[in-house]
Amino acid sequence: MTPHPLDVAMFLQPAAEGRLTGLTNDAYWNFAGPFGGYTAALLMKAIMDDPRRLGPPVAQTVNFCAPISKGAFDIIVVLQRSGKATQHWSLELRQGDVVAATASIVCANRRETFAHESTARPIVPPPANVPAQSTTGPLAWLARYDFRFIEGAPGFGGKPRPTDDLGSARTALWLKDAPDRPLDYVALSALCDCFILRLLQIRGTMVPMSTVSMTSYFHATPDELAAHGTRHLLGIADAKRFNANFHDQSMELWSADGVLLASGVQTVWYKE
Amino acid sequence: MTPHPLDVAMFLQPAAEGRLTGLTNDAYWNFAGPFGGYTAALLMKAIMDDPRRLGPPVAQTVNFCAPISKGAFDIIVVLQRSGKATQHWSLELRQGDVVAATASIVCANRRETFAHESTARPIVPPPANVPAQSTTGPLAWLARYDFRFIEGAPGFGGKPRPTDDLGSARTALWLKDAPDRPLDYVALSALCDCFILRLLQIRGTMVPMSTVSMTSYFHATPDELAAHGTRHLLGIADAKRFNANFHDQSMELWSADGVLLASGVQTVWYKE
Repeated sequence: MTPHPLDVAMFLQPAAEGRLTGLTNDAYWNFAGPFGGYTAALLMKAIMDDPRRLGPPVAQTVNFCAPISKGAFDIIVVLQRSGKATQHWSLELRQGDVVAATASIVCANRRETFAHESTARPIVPPPANVPAQSTTGPLAWLARYDFRFIEGAPGFGGKPRPTDDLGSARTALWLKDAPDRPLDYVALSALCDCFILRLLQIRGTMVPMSTVSMTSYFHATPDELAAHGTRHLLGIADAKRFNANFHDQSMELWSADGVLLASGVQTVWYKE
Repeated sequence: MTPHPLDVAMFLQPAAEGRLTGLTNDAYWNFAGPFGGYTAALLMKAIMDDPRRLGPPVAQTVNFCAPISKGAFDIIVVLQRSGKATQHWSLELRQGDVVAATASIVCANRRETFAHESTARPIVPPPANVPAQSTTGPLAWLARYDFRFIEGAPGFGGKPRPTDDLGSARTALWLKDAPDRPLDYVALSALCDCFILRLLQIRGTMVPMSTVSMTSYFHATPDELAAHGTRHLLGIADAKRFNANFHDQSMELWSADGVLLASGVQTVWYKE
């Protein structure tokens, strides 16, 4: 069986106590480096493989400090604190002297407790009724996903929108790994960053922009991920304020069964 | 003039290259340690005072690793990366060998750019028409704020709600420092954590619970903070999913002038 491109791209080798090494992978390349979800997933992989891990991840913050160049990198892992209920990790992705990314990940011992959902999954047509977006083009990472836009498809190469007719910041889409891959926390970590930057939706045109920091919360238990399997996730993205070189962005990822698997936010730098 | 309690509580002394020392302050004490907003504000203060700082803060993530004990602490500051547009900091708050908190802060060079708001401030009665909550009681930090609940006042000491009649996760309130203090990034960092944990709203009763990780985005420019002054901020808090020992929580802080100054999320551990 051919390994999945994500598993090939996530190959990490233990190099020393608290240090792993890897090589960047062109399959998840974006403009000036790998797509941010690849970086998040690598850092998640480093923790998922660590024998000291207490339980499933609950939260991840990734700070994108510098573009990652093609080639080798190190991941430095520090277990900051481990208790009975939660565990705190700090990570750095380095290339030589350059810190390309920093991250924190919280893992936890999760048991059955009081449970409640105060939001319901939006009602949308099923994935089979929504056409898949063409993902051919110069950005390799787009082809690693099956995207089916229900609302707010990105305006790549479109005409800039007039300032009195800006687009909506909201997008709803079905998405999953391509080819199919059973959902796990590594894939979910990458999927949290699969939303096109909201500025593009609003303005309909490309200016220099990139995610600076991203935080993802994993509501999903291991059983919920297993039950989801290889089906599409429903993704919802939105934003609140664009001002002085930065905008926020929020996202939700819902399972095929209507369970909120992950939610998160990111802050995005843009040039003008 | 008597200094403001927040300024007294934020006193930090440079101890060595990249290390500051301080003493905890009872004025912001919660149950088993200071209220989380105090910790966030201390870490923000460490960066605001640093001569290497590029510009205003844009994002902050704080991971609450262990309770902070009364007494001395160290803050370790590492400038991970500094570019023309953004700057990445990592921080740790330590007491002896215990890492009580880790944090990342992004600062930026903010200039005037394309600007857009895709949400509007909720329409609510003015602060003068909303009664102030009594904040006397064992939790000192509550008295450091003026809280005026418009919707979803906390059910401290109330009866547990039946599972078929849970409360709403949403709260709207006016809030500000007490006594008055002109708004700055240090105060704003603390205000981002001034929302009672949503589980209490939903269940109407107290179980062991605490914030594990918190991320705040500062949309406000320095001019917007100066224009806000000492007036109330409108705070909105909500949550999406409570499951297997954790729930998420989101918040917005709006200025008296209707500008979104900050937004953020946190993940909260609860026992049962």
